[in-house]
Amino acid sequence: MDFLKVTEIKDIEKLIFEKIPTLKGNKEIIKLENSLGRILYEDIKSKENIPEFNRSTVDGYAIKSRESQGASQGIPAFFTIKGEVSMGENTEKELKSGEAIYVPTGAMIPAGADSMIMIEYCEILDDTLLIHKPVSKYENIMLLGEDIKIDEIILEKGSQITPENVGVLASMGIYQLSVFKKFRFSIISTGDELVGENEEYKKGKIRDINSYTLSHAIENFGEVVEKKIVRDNYETLLEEVKKSTEISDIVLISGGSSAGNYDYTSKVISQLDGGEVFIHGISIKPGKPTIVGKSNDKLIFGLPGHPISSIVVFNIIVKKLIEKLCHKKDKEEFYYGILSHNLHSTPGRTTYQMVNKTIDEGEIIINPIFGKSGMTTLMTKSNGYIILDTDTEGLVKGSRVKVYKF
Amino acid sequence: MDFLKVTEIKDIEKLIFEKIPTLKGNKEIIKLENSLGRILYEDIKSKENIPEFNRSTVDGYAIKSRESQGASQGIPAFFTIKGEVSMGENTEKELKSGEAIYVPTGAMIPAGADSMIMIEYCEILDDTLLIHKPVSKYENIMLLGEDIKIDEIILEKGSQITPENVGVLASMGIYQLSVFKKFRFSIISTGDELVGENEEYKKGKIRDINSYTLSHAIENFGEVVEKKIVRDNYETLLEEVKKSTEISDIVLISGGSSAGNYDYTSKVISQLDGGEVFIHGISIKPGKPTIVGKSNDKLIFGLPGHPISSIVVFNIIVKKLIEKLCHKKDKEEFYYGILSHNLHSTPGRTTYQMVNKTIDEGEIIINPIFGKSGMTTLMTKSNGYIILDTDTEGLVKGSRVKVYKF
Repeated sequence: MDFLKVTEIKDIEKLIFEKIPTLKGNKEIIKLENSLGRILYEDIKSKENIPEFNRSTVDGYAIKSRESQGASQGIPAFFTIKGEVSMGENTEKELKSGEAIYVPTGAMIPAGADSMIMIEYCEILDDTLLIHKPVSKYENIMLLGEDIKIDEIILEKGSQITPENVGVLASMGIYQLSVFKKFRFSIISTGDELVGENEEYKKGKIRDINSYTLSHAIENFGEVVEKKIVRDNYETLLEEVKKSTEISDIVLISGGSSAGNYDYTSKVISQLDGGEVFIHGISIKPGKPTIVGKSNDKLIFGLPGHPISSIVVFNIIVKKLIEKLCHKKDKEEFYYGILSHNLHSTPGRTTYQMVNKTIDEGEIIINPIFGKSGMTTLMTKSNGYIILDTDTEGLVKGSRVKVYKF
Repeated sequence: MDFLKVTEIKDIEKLIFEKIPTLKGNKEIIKLENSLGRILYEDIKSKENIPEFNRSTVDGYAIKSRESQGASQGIPAFFTIKGEVSMGENTEKELKSGEAIYVPTGAMIPAGADSMIMIEYCEILDDTLLIHKPVSKYENIMLLGEDIKIDEIILEKGSQITPENVGVLASMGIYQLSVFKKFRFSIISTGDELVGENEEYKKGKIRDINSYTLSHAIENFGEVVEKKIVRDNYETLLEEVKKSTEISDIVLISGGSSAGNYDYTSKVISQLDGGEVFIHGISIKPGKPTIVGKSNDKLIFGLPGHPISSIVVFNIIVKKLIEKLCHKKDKEEFYYGILSHNLHSTPGRTTYQMVNKTIDEGEIIINPIFGKSGMTTLMTKSNGYIILDTDTEGLVKGSRVKVYKF
């Protein structure tokens, strides 16, 4: 097939949404304890104030702050101790003028008090509290709603659940969440030369790599419902892709290494129910021989056979599309560093150059990783990439570059 | 209890290893398909060359390169086409002088050939191949062992398994791996004021937060074998911690918010079989009221009750210790940015200042996040931290700072 009418990377999502207007993320309700890494389907608002009461942030005595004014080492202020508030108690005590009540960290401040004096600054003689320095209004108190106000949006739609987010949700008693349902993926590796895990390996053959890299890359945000190797036979491939579209949202067909596979894949997609290939090649390097099509409302990608190309296309197209469908915030993980070598761009194609980083005198140095097409070790040696646009001539050594993480 | 004899952060690991010399990571054998995120227990060497044969990286014809010398648009070089090599075939064909054999991408180069001419540059007339440009020796060929050599170390002990690593292992037929066994954790939240998921919440109480943040933070590299809330009762706590040491490698006791809990925890640990508290406070902010002890060879942490303090101590002490025990490579994820505000350090304590980042004209701006002690929303607003050493006076606005990710 010819890859002359390649699509530019910036036009891909638009084209996909035009062709499958029904494509969207769906809702699922899960338990908080299983939510790590998931993406929120809707804003989460607080149903209560946090704290729900004026809370002490220290161990000490609740007093009226103005009654401590002028207290000093020489002339202490005196208070009458009137019991204590226990942890977890919904106290109805009311502090009167000249009184002090003991309150531990986290417990409720009694009505009438507006500040806490830390135990370290207190001297106690029987029922009398002596303090030697003044405290200001609201000192050592977290006021009702100061952390989170009722109806405040705590986490927005599209936020990814981190351990820290889980903590905030638990503090509000939110133990169930609406998140985006994981997209279901089928992974089909094609090629007569491919040998799977349970097949005998013979010289001349190549072990299946892409189904492993792709399924692990998907693990973080999707669900792999099946993984299979299909030989280079038109009828078999048609049958298997058809089956996959019935049980998945997205089908990834990873070519073997032969160019002929792309022809098969393209023909097969066109023959499916509501089948159409609408992207015939993408103007990127690596990853040019990528095709995108559909069967009714199911999305189908024909990925390149080379392991690096296949994972690059997955990360920059498939993963980004899912993130868009889930309205994901903070999508791009990147940092800046200094380029260690000159880099040439490829005319007419956006280049994704694999790199790794080293540290030299507090500076992050970005080293391009080179190797022949199809080398698997390029993958273990690199941990990110930089993008060379079609309109740049290249980048010179010493430039400050933006590095994206895998 | 007094926290006057606090331990410096740099001395903590040394002390732990002195007190529990048997502490180490153990081995477990798992399937490749379940290995994402795990840490390799030993170096992985290749048992074979990759590729195992000279492999074509293009679709085209295998020839002897010296026979293409001088070929040009005007004067092509001629070859006799002698069949083809199929994908996956262990060919015994031998190329003789003046011959060309078709080889698809990924297939084996026949003996006698030393280069591939791409199909795009070929003209075919019956059994004759005409080429209009010379090719150099080894052009478009990946030589035997060029990607990975036999006995080469592919991944070192301590490497974390990424989707890319999985691909390289699959390419070598390695479908089982020795990884570090996950450390087993018990999480005990203490405090009369704490309310768990299945308990009724009343005003004055505080919902359990730390068991949620900690268990999710552990999820990435450990296994939470139990999670429980224990009331402020000496005997109950002693009994429960004892039970936990029997089923876990590491016990995390997260204090409620009251200082009294630390006394309980400290006494309880001392009373256990082979019990001892050897760290009474750490010179960090937040996280000072942290205690570390043991029961025989089981490690016990008494973490602060404040959610932020507890997760900070977990990340900078517990997590780093586990990473050390697993010989983890590339431990610290960090980047550099420009500080947006002046920051003061705390005399005598290493300060971990929570921050988030914004982007301004291609520069990463680091914004300190401030808030009262115990505020849970500090956690959702920040996504990393910077470290202010005890010996710095602080950092001025506009400084270039190193930011660690959570």
